[in-house]
Amino acid sequence: MTRPLRLGIAGLGTVGGGVMRLLAEQNAVLAQRGGRPIAVAAVSARRRDADRGFDLSGVRWHDDARALAADPEVDVVVELIGGAEGVAHDLVMAALANGKAVVTANKALLAHHGAEIAGRAEAAGVALGFEASVAGGIPIVKALREGFAGNKVQRVYGILNGTCNFILTAMREQKREFRRALADAQKLGYAEADPTFDIEGIDTAHKLAILASVAFGCPPDLKGVYVEGITHVSLTDIEFAKELGYRIKLLGLARTTADGLEQRVHPCMVPVSHPIAHVDGVFNAVVVEADFADRNMAMGRGAGAGPTASAVVADLVDIARLQRLPVFNVPVAHLKPMPAAPMERHRGAYYVRFMVVDRPGVLADMTAAFRDEQVSIEALIQRARNPGDIVPVVMTTHDTEEAAMRRALAKIAALKSVREPPRTIRIEHF
Amino acid sequence: MTRPLRLGIAGLGTVGGGVMRLLAEQNAVLAQRGGRPIAVAAVSARRRDADRGFDLSGVRWHDDARALAADPEVDVVVELIGGAEGVAHDLVMAALANGKAVVTANKALLAHHGAEIAGRAEAAGVALGFEASVAGGIPIVKALREGFAGNKVQRVYGILNGTCNFILTAMREQKREFRRALADAQKLGYAEADPTFDIEGIDTAHKLAILASVAFGCPPDLKGVYVEGITHVSLTDIEFAKELGYRIKLLGLARTTADGLEQRVHPCMVPVSHPIAHVDGVFNAVVVEADFADRNMAMGRGAGAGPTASAVVADLVDIARLQRLPVFNVPVAHLKPMPAAPMERHRGAYYVRFMVVDRPGVLADMTAAFRDEQVSIEALIQRARNPGDIVPVVMTTHDTEEAAMRRALAKIAALKSVREPPRTIRIEHF
Repeated sequence: MTRPLRLGIAGLGTVGGGVMRLLAEQNAVLAQRGGRPIAVAAVSARRRDADRGFDLSGVRWHDDARALAADPEVDVVVELIGGAEGVAHDLVMAALANGKAVVTANKALLAHHGAEIAGRAEAAGVALGFEASVAGGIPIVKALREGFAGNKVQRVYGILNGTCNFILTAMREQKREFRRALADAQKLGYAEADPTFDIEGIDTAHKLAILASVAFGCPPDLKGVYVEGITHVSLTDIEFAKELGYRIKLLGLARTTADGLEQRVHPCMVPVSHPIAHVDGVFNAVVVEADFADRNMAMGRGAGAGPTASAVVADLVDIARLQRLPVFNVPVAHLKPMPAAPMERHRGAYYVRFMVVDRPGVLADMTAAFRDEQVSIEALIQRARNPGDIVPVVMTTHDTEEAAMRRALAKIAALKSVREPPRTIRIEHF
Repeated sequence: MTRPLRLGIAGLGTVGGGVMRLLAEQNAVLAQRGGRPIAVAAVSARRRDADRGFDLSGVRWHDDARALAADPEVDVVVELIGGAEGVAHDLVMAALANGKAVVTANKALLAHHGAEIAGRAEAAGVALGFEASVAGGIPIVKALREGFAGNKVQRVYGILNGTCNFILTAMREQKREFRRALADAQKLGYAEADPTFDIEGIDTAHKLAILASVAFGCPPDLKGVYVEGITHVSLTDIEFAKELGYRIKLLGLARTTADGLEQRVHPCMVPVSHPIAHVDGVFNAVVVEADFADRNMAMGRGAGAGPTASAVVADLVDIARLQRLPVFNVPVAHLKPMPAAPMERHRGAYYVRFMVVDRPGVLADMTAAFRDEQVSIEALIQRARNPGDIVPVVMTTHDTEEAAMRRALAKIAALKSVREPPRTIRIEHF
């Protein structure tokens, strides 16, 4: 039998435990598929004495994860610690410097330092696997780097954060307000005690920057991502969306435009006729639009021990097979930095909800503000209430420029009858 | 620059033309991604003088496609002729015998002769690419062989025929009967003049046998596929499906059961809450359920020049990168033939529509037949009409065995008040 591929695993939390379990259970089939056994040689984690429910006998222990990078019995470092800086960063850099392949689930690390890390891996002539960093169990990095190798990608977008999708789904299905749905997600373990990273869209931005890099052959540009989270999405908006034939999803979207690379993360109204509108709960989905393959969508679980371990191990099998591809699809020397397309130049349709005092002339003032900015209204919903009540007025627009929209909204927000900041959700027609 | 990968392309129809155009347009990026240029050295097609809109100068012409297998300037034979026997079969066998890699879009060939061809490729030590044979532009073979390499697949199913999905979608959206929707599909070029292969489910069966082979590590077993087409699906059923919360899709489904490998192709009622219910028109979708990755769905265009060329070229890039995997995911010696699970043993829920003369006692006779076979009725729809009219009676059942269902239906069909053969559509709850 060929010499096994020897792993050094850093981090034995949910994902690390999943990887250990998968490697043990699928041992035989992995050896067959990878052409040689895959064996855990060494591990590192915060607590040595934790009861993890799997066997660590015969596996070398390192108190400091960084020591895995220097362990001569380790061929591949599997980094499952997380975080853009600190131990994870040091470990990956040291492993590459020592000529070890790296497999990581760390989206923050790649979004912040992707180009540098890719350069190190290339210089060392080793593989860098990061399938698990985006959309968990969905093999989307492989699809982009290999499955669509014959294509130029035109646009990539998706539901990249299961926590947000769970919350938005619960709001719609159970008619709950955001705070209540978030609390439920926390109770079920789908949201962290401090949910900021997820609900403010930062996690989605990390993943989008990585996807855009692989799709368009540019260095990951996290700073170029426009980010809005889901904390302002209300049940009212979700119900209006339904009435208008949409569902609200937090999407990350990237495409190349005449102004540069457009990367946006924000709640979107998605037509119910689009399959992504039906990707609910903690599921993720990524849509790739490419010149020959046309529109493809891949859907699956974006997190959790099993799906993430599935992605980590797929990378390991590729490495066992001696496959090594350019990290972001082209050699680092060919990565083309692109300017970030300014959000003000974005063109698209909009849903806006105003809370107004229902009295004569309000609608005239509002529609005049849109007319002055050349924003064309597609639909308007206002229901009769008692005069003097505060009522929602909802408008959807035809495609317009973000800057014009913002100017119109600023004028309307200043009207005396308008009682809350207008709530905007961009409509995506795809 | 490294020596180019030299192709011999057999067949210059829709797909062959798409491959030629893709190779020309993406020339530079393919060389980068594949590590060396991909060049067309020779071609063969039926008519040499056809105006195909692409340049064949500098490309050797063979009147007989089989000559490509012997051309010393050809590294990879790209077989785009089609058909399980004849020229396509001879060409592939000869190419492998001569140590040339093969890329093919030919599902019939692989469904009928897959194990033998895989054996030849393995003996010759060359790659056999067939991504284009299943679900067109969706990189599902790559996902199964590589993306889910860490998993045991539990079930694979999907919409594998765009013609049928177009017809079923048109029936639902435009409220047309089958014959009318088929005629429309033919006018639009989505169905052939003789549509038998598509509408009778044979094309889906070919693709399912290939998918099952890759998913479960068994030789393709076309004979083991239970096949029903869509010709009996009526607009009435589509409308009842809607009322019951389902959509009707022609699915191919494969899973391992205690009785062996279950492979079925037939119209299914799919819950509207499942994303596959929203895969409409000519789009295909494949769902993979695996032990670690859980449920994944990939959706895209299943046919057409661009998407099929995208799949063919992805295989070529893999070959340019010297990647060679076991054809059906495990070495041929490890392919495990499995007995075909008899359809009579299938357990599932059923939708049945009877056309009955509305008179006293009819329902009692029908429900008694179900009771006698231990078939438990979940829902029953009968609308009031005038006594003596022929009316539809629709029932859905809880999970039951196919054999019991068939016995009950035979009894009911023999009742004097039942005026047409009962129409059955299996319900899939997933």
